[in-house]
Amino acid sequence: MACGEFDLIARYFDRFKSVRRDVQLGIGDDCALLTVPEKQLLAISTDTLVSGIHFLADIDPADLGYKALAVNLSDLAAMGADPAWLSLALTLPEVNEEWLKAFSDSLFEQMNYYGMQLIGGDTTRGPLSMTLTIHGHIPVGRALTRSGARIGDWIYVTGTLGDSAAGLAILQDRLQVSDQAAHEYLLARHLRPHPRVLQGQALRDLASSAIDISDGLISDLKHVLNASECGARIELDELPMSQTLTSNTDADQALRWALTGGEDYELCFTVPEINRGALEVALSHLGADYTCIGQIGPQSEGMKFYRDQQEVELPWSGYDHFGTAQ
Amino acid sequence: MACGEFDLIARYFDRFKSVRRDVQLGIGDDCALLTVPEKQLLAISTDTLVSGIHFLADIDPADLGYKALAVNLSDLAAMGADPAWLSLALTLPEVNEEWLKAFSDSLFEQMNYYGMQLIGGDTTRGPLSMTLTIHGHIPVGRALTRSGARIGDWIYVTGTLGDSAAGLAILQDRLQVSDQAAHEYLLARHLRPHPRVLQGQALRDLASSAIDISDGLISDLKHVLNASECGARIELDELPMSQTLTSNTDADQALRWALTGGEDYELCFTVPEINRGALEVALSHLGADYTCIGQIGPQSEGMKFYRDQQEVELPWSGYDHFGTAQ
Repeated sequence: MACGEFDLIARYFDRFKSVRRDVQLGIGDDCALLTVPEKQLLAISTDTLVSGIHFLADIDPADLGYKALAVNLSDLAAMGADPAWLSLALTLPEVNEEWLKAFSDSLFEQMNYYGMQLIGGDTTRGPLSMTLTIHGHIPVGRALTRSGARIGDWIYVTGTLGDSAAGLAILQDRLQVSDQAAHEYLLARHLRPHPRVLQGQALRDLASSAIDISDGLISDLKHVLNASECGARIELDELPMSQTLTSNTDADQALRWALTGGEDYELCFTVPEINRGALEVALSHLGADYTCIGQIGPQSEGMKFYRDQQEVELPWSGYDHFGTAQ
Repeated sequence: MACGEFDLIARYFDRFKSVRRDVQLGIGDDCALLTVPEKQLLAISTDTLVSGIHFLADIDPADLGYKALAVNLSDLAAMGADPAWLSLALTLPEVNEEWLKAFSDSLFEQMNYYGMQLIGGDTTRGPLSMTLTIHGHIPVGRALTRSGARIGDWIYVTGTLGDSAAGLAILQDRLQVSDQAAHEYLLARHLRPHPRVLQGQALRDLASSAIDISDGLISDLKHVLNASECGARIELDELPMSQTLTSNTDADQALRWALTGGEDYELCFTVPEINRGALEVALSHLGADYTCIGQIGPQSEGMKFYRDQQEVELPWSGYDHFGTAQ
């Protein structure tokens, strides 16, 4: 069936018009036209996902539609921003309506959950990939950045680390997990990560810095340390790992995934001593655990790892698309 | 040489930091943080360019860096917006520093010309493609849209039509042009189109609608007619074509390229009778010609073409990535 590009866009992506009052003109003109609320900054982030690099070519389109947005939302979460608008550039090798329906249903389900609106994009033919540019709002002066960590601040992460890497290993037949519930839990942690949007917002006035864990704790924490000109002491025994992860892999593999596996989409944030008490009030009702895993130190000491008060050497570093690491 | 993703980004794209005062935080955190001036709307547009679809795989990276942004700027021009910020998602099959330098030099040259700043993006490995999301500002209530054309308004285009399609035909060995100056002119019209940013701004209070010609005059004008619920009468003898185009192709081919070739990145806009006189004042000092090519009519009459007062039937329609047209 011949299906024009514009028909295709209209059918699957031009839904729920004018949901948000700040969208003056949505899809259907040369540009979208938008208003930013008074005394709010605009937060913008862009992520590209390429088939075979960021997701397996045979991924369920519903999982892909979910994860593409979750990854992008996670960047907003790390700044403490409110999600608002999405631009989606989708490159497809062919028009597959079943695929498009599953992908877009899943995308819109999550967009609606966060009260977001699709404001534009592009649909082109080519090897399967997509670029999402997400826009959020944040009150002036309250954004969480990477550069605010100070010596003595405590380092926290939300949730558990390493599950996503284990889920990927299952998909790639590098890990066998016979227990069905454990198998599904780890897959879901890889395919359906929960962006910590509400946690990021709750941390606005408490955390001194924040980042989301996309490339692995070590790699992402390094960005914070570089931007803040600090070092860090990490207590390996404090790293939060799920019972499911630790009971289905050996301890070394679990630790390696927790530190370098990536795609956890948990938040790593730092909190000054004076705000530690308020954390419990701010985060406890949001349903995600959080764990103190170490403390910010001087830059000259770099990133150091401890176990039982002893410094430990680790030979790993984070994931890097173009690098030779790992 | 091993070259990390983040080094690569830093080296070629993290330049000219903090050029704009409305960029509170640029490249280097999870999101960029930006302020939108008071009483201004934000205009946003996204374009994807895929190797082999939107540009030839062996294109000079300097031409690609220029054209990718020009295409995006053209969308802002069609709304009458001021260019401000760019997000660039670049997918590369390999790290080629010579290619990256030429591409980014060319991109930044044009960004600087328009006072723009790169605020973020993504760099990934994969088949060569890129997605640009451009952000501009426009005073509230003054944006040009596709939906404002009214019966009796005059239809104009800037510049000349069809040159870009002829330039593409040269690149694809479908057209031979022996005269060197003509050859270079047509290539430049394809590879280095001038986005009509200043013209779009000058038309803010004069034009009733506007669109940029990316898919071909017929295809793009149809979007205006659909959005405005109108028809149009086009005078084929009035279509502006360059001397170079008409003297290097037969009349039928030239006309076909002018109407359906696409990638002209000229503006097509409509002007009420009462504003026609003011057009000369607004556009004459901007260096681009503009030509009245017809008039808006009732929707029931559709798009009609005339020559010597006689209606002419045309068998062509515009370019469509997923369609069967052309």
